[in-house]
Amino acid sequence: MSKAEALPLTEAEVRPCCPPLNERPLTAEEADEAAAMFKALGDPIRLRLFSQVASHVDGEACVCDISDVGVSQPTVSHHLKKLREAGLLTSERRGTWVYYRVTPSVMASLARSFSISG
Amino acid sequence: MSKAEALPLTEAEVRPCCPPLNERPLTAEEADEAAAMFKALGDPIRLRLFSQVASHVDGEACVCDISDVGVSQPTVSHHLKKLREAGLLTSERRGTWVYYRVTPSVMASLARSFSISG
Repeated sequence: MSKAEALPLTEAEVRPCCPPLNERPLTAEEADEAAAMFKALGDPIRLRLFSQVASHVDGEACVCDISDVGVSQPTVSHHLKKLREAGLLTSERRGTWVYYRVTPSVMASLARSFSISG
Repeated sequence: MSKAEALPLTEAEVRPCCPPLNERPLTAEEADEAAAMFKALGDPIRLRLFSQVASHVDGEACVCDISDVGVSQPTVSHHLKKLREAGLLTSERRGTWVYYRVTPSVMASLARSFSISG
């Protein structure tokens, strides 16, 4: 399955989140959108889970693939849901498991936030 | 004044914060360090302030340069302090004002977090 076919994407999921932070002051709307993503990554457990999904073979992982990060499976699922709600992960149920992958465009969009402009 | 002379930097300020998030699962220690930065950027007002400093002429700004983001000056100062504590900004008092600039290496380190590895 290609990344493009992973899931129907919402507009919020495919829209690049943010201009380079050193290009010009962000507008309130841009800041709201980007801050929601950073906030989701601003928890060590969530960041480790994001990293596990992002680095997993084929770029996707289910809860069954997640290594122990010191929290219960319901807590893992809760954090994965938060990452999905922030537009960082997409999910798809296949049989017993829900599979997560990094939303296409998210890595590039966030890298762009920190690219040196000008 | 060159960036290198802006302030004596602590080890935490100059050390690259994080490997690419899709390279391998972050360790707990790496996640703690990177999540602290993302958490600081995970507030829309702080993110706008960071963007104002990062995009200001010469790459530095004092509170006197900050455009209205809808909060009081003490609140602006509080948020700038949080950004400094997270290692995202450095500060230097010159005369009446404290000047802030983005910590050298921070933009590159965070861009690297989202670079596509492999």
